[in-house]
Amino acid sequence: MPQKVRIALDAMGGDFGPSVVIPGAAIALGRHPDAEFLLFGDSALIDKELAAHPALKKVSRVVHTDVAVSMHDKPSQALRRGRKVSSMWLAIEAVKKGEADVAVSAGNTGALMAMARFCLRTLPGIDRPAIAATWPTVRGDSVVLDLGATIGGDAAHLKALAVMGAAMASVLFDLERPTVGLLNIGVEEIKGGEEIREAAELLRAMQSPPFEFIGFVEGDGIGSGAADVIVSEGFSGNIALKAAEGTARQIIQLLRDAMSRTWSAKIGYLFARGAFRALRDKIDPNKSNGGVFLGLNGIVVKSHGGTNADGFAYAVDVSYDMVRYDLLTKINQTLNRETGALVSTPSAQEAVS
Amino acid sequence: MPQKVRIALDAMGGDFGPSVVIPGAAIALGRHPDAEFLLFGDSALIDKELAAHPALKKVSRVVHTDVAVSMHDKPSQALRRGRKVSSMWLAIEAVKKGEADVAVSAGNTGALMAMARFCLRTLPGIDRPAIAATWPTVRGDSVVLDLGATIGGDAAHLKALAVMGAAMASVLFDLERPTVGLLNIGVEEIKGGEEIREAAELLRAMQSPPFEFIGFVEGDGIGSGAADVIVSEGFSGNIALKAAEGTARQIIQLLRDAMSRTWSAKIGYLFARGAFRALRDKIDPNKSNGGVFLGLNGIVVKSHGGTNADGFAYAVDVSYDMVRYDLLTKINQTLNRETGALVSTPSAQEAVS
Repeated sequence: MPQKVRIALDAMGGDFGPSVVIPGAAIALGRHPDAEFLLFGDSALIDKELAAHPALKKVSRVVHTDVAVSMHDKPSQALRRGRKVSSMWLAIEAVKKGEADVAVSAGNTGALMAMARFCLRTLPGIDRPAIAATWPTVRGDSVVLDLGATIGGDAAHLKALAVMGAAMASVLFDLERPTVGLLNIGVEEIKGGEEIREAAELLRAMQSPPFEFIGFVEGDGIGSGAADVIVSEGFSGNIALKAAEGTARQIIQLLRDAMSRTWSAKIGYLFARGAFRALRDKIDPNKSNGGVFLGLNGIVVKSHGGTNADGFAYAVDVSYDMVRYDLLTKINQTLNRETGALVSTPSAQEAVS
Repeated sequence: MPQKVRIALDAMGGDFGPSVVIPGAAIALGRHPDAEFLLFGDSALIDKELAAHPALKKVSRVVHTDVAVSMHDKPSQALRRGRKVSSMWLAIEAVKKGEADVAVSAGNTGALMAMARFCLRTLPGIDRPAIAATWPTVRGDSVVLDLGATIGGDAAHLKALAVMGAAMASVLFDLERPTVGLLNIGVEEIKGGEEIREAAELLRAMQSPPFEFIGFVEGDGIGSGAADVIVSEGFSGNIALKAAEGTARQIIQLLRDAMSRTWSAKIGYLFARGAFRALRDKIDPNKSNGGVFLGLNGIVVKSHGGTNADGFAYAVDVSYDMVRYDLLTKINQTLNRETGALVSTPSAQEAVS
């Protein structure tokens, strides 16, 4: 029997704290009976929620702390106030100490990234971390990264993103060699964007990488499922994510307005209710919940702050998969091989320049 | 009676050439009876189309050329083959010579921008051009720029984009002081993005500009109508546009699939047909057709290559408005005042640093 997957939860994170985190963990436990939980936060509040979930209670250990990082703390404030003592920090530190395999928090992104980086440090060969998440496409889900951890970055950074994103896609989607595309704009022979073209050369020069590089993908290629993994530096990746989310919300709103404007449309809605439910289900943002921090010595998963228990459970699912299918080992194997290749064959550098 | 608006059309541009351009111009003429047209391209093809549109024929002059830039020509190829002789070049040159007030082409973006830049040159005070377009939001339309003309750019470039975008919004939406937001990502205290923060300082330091700067806007703020004008450097702007367009197409496709899957949904569709039509109408990409090249000594409008006559007519509408409501004069006034301010008050530079 394989080892248990030990998940550390920041029980105070998010807009609703334990009242979402604990029921969410209970839902995830139902899907993954071999999970165990370390719950950090206000033990009175946590115990109250746990009382309603005896199965979860049996596989959980509660570690009390009074300190919680607020959703509005700036990263520097959070570090100052919350280092060593906050529920967020303690969950991450449990990963560092080897007491947990992964940490999940619905707390604020900037603070969580700052703490994760400070506590876990970046992997050898990785300068700067990234946030990756799944993106629903017409062809199933894709992994998109970086969604805003790091602004800018050179060709080597983009290559590292490709390696990490591909490892995540193979873990999540059970793919042998996921396809990888570099986010770019379509106009050719334009000034700027050299680092993207250079990254393409680096990726093409890799010796049998565990993914297939398919070249450049434009913004509308993300949603059409042009590649299993879409790589972008963090600014554009974040803009793409938010623009797409905003558009989806906007169209759903317009659709809702249109369906309630006339009697005929209302009747139509009644008949088509099942279809609307299926559609909503397909683009449910909760189902894409779970931003994975990549490039650190340990895995941290960020849940949306405003999610419900179902949404938080999806983030826990993601964290479970990352551990169960050895994300970090997969990333390190490729990185080590690449580093080894660069060290042992000095001509490799020339080959790609 | 005001002067006529003289519009130069690249009749060979786009996937369908004169068979879309001429009927499109005819539709636009119906809305703007004070427009005149210069039509560049294969006169046999153009005359054939004009025969069906006598009103348009009466206010048009056809200038024959055999050379057309293809949708696949790279900018450098297009310049080499098409300079001085192609329908695209001649339409732009008509603006330079003062024979037309504005040029419209559905030809390929890279070639059109290269030719426009080469022929018209950038405005004094503007280093690099931009592409701006309207974006349908829940609060009505906004102007978004740059959509991909220029990758990167410093704070001064972003400020120039704000000035030009605001002028376009006041022309298109008849606003005295449109609101302007800078596209940014939400995480604070992150490295990178200095040029955006610096641009915000430059905009705040402007003396009673003809717009109201409202600060940073995230990717989902574009579609929610957070500002009348959204300013971004060209890479992220293009990614945002394409990601949003892709998402819209994707949801419409999912909706269509869902509505045809069961009998009940099909019946629902019949009742709600009017509502669906209203929705489709609202997010019709043809209605947002017309990318305006800003920052040049003359106005060039780019239509989608694959649009139909209705879509092309919208691009002509946009070009008409730009001329009728003096876009270039408005831009130049603000730019000159800013340049003057910088020259006459040396302390202005210090005030914003």
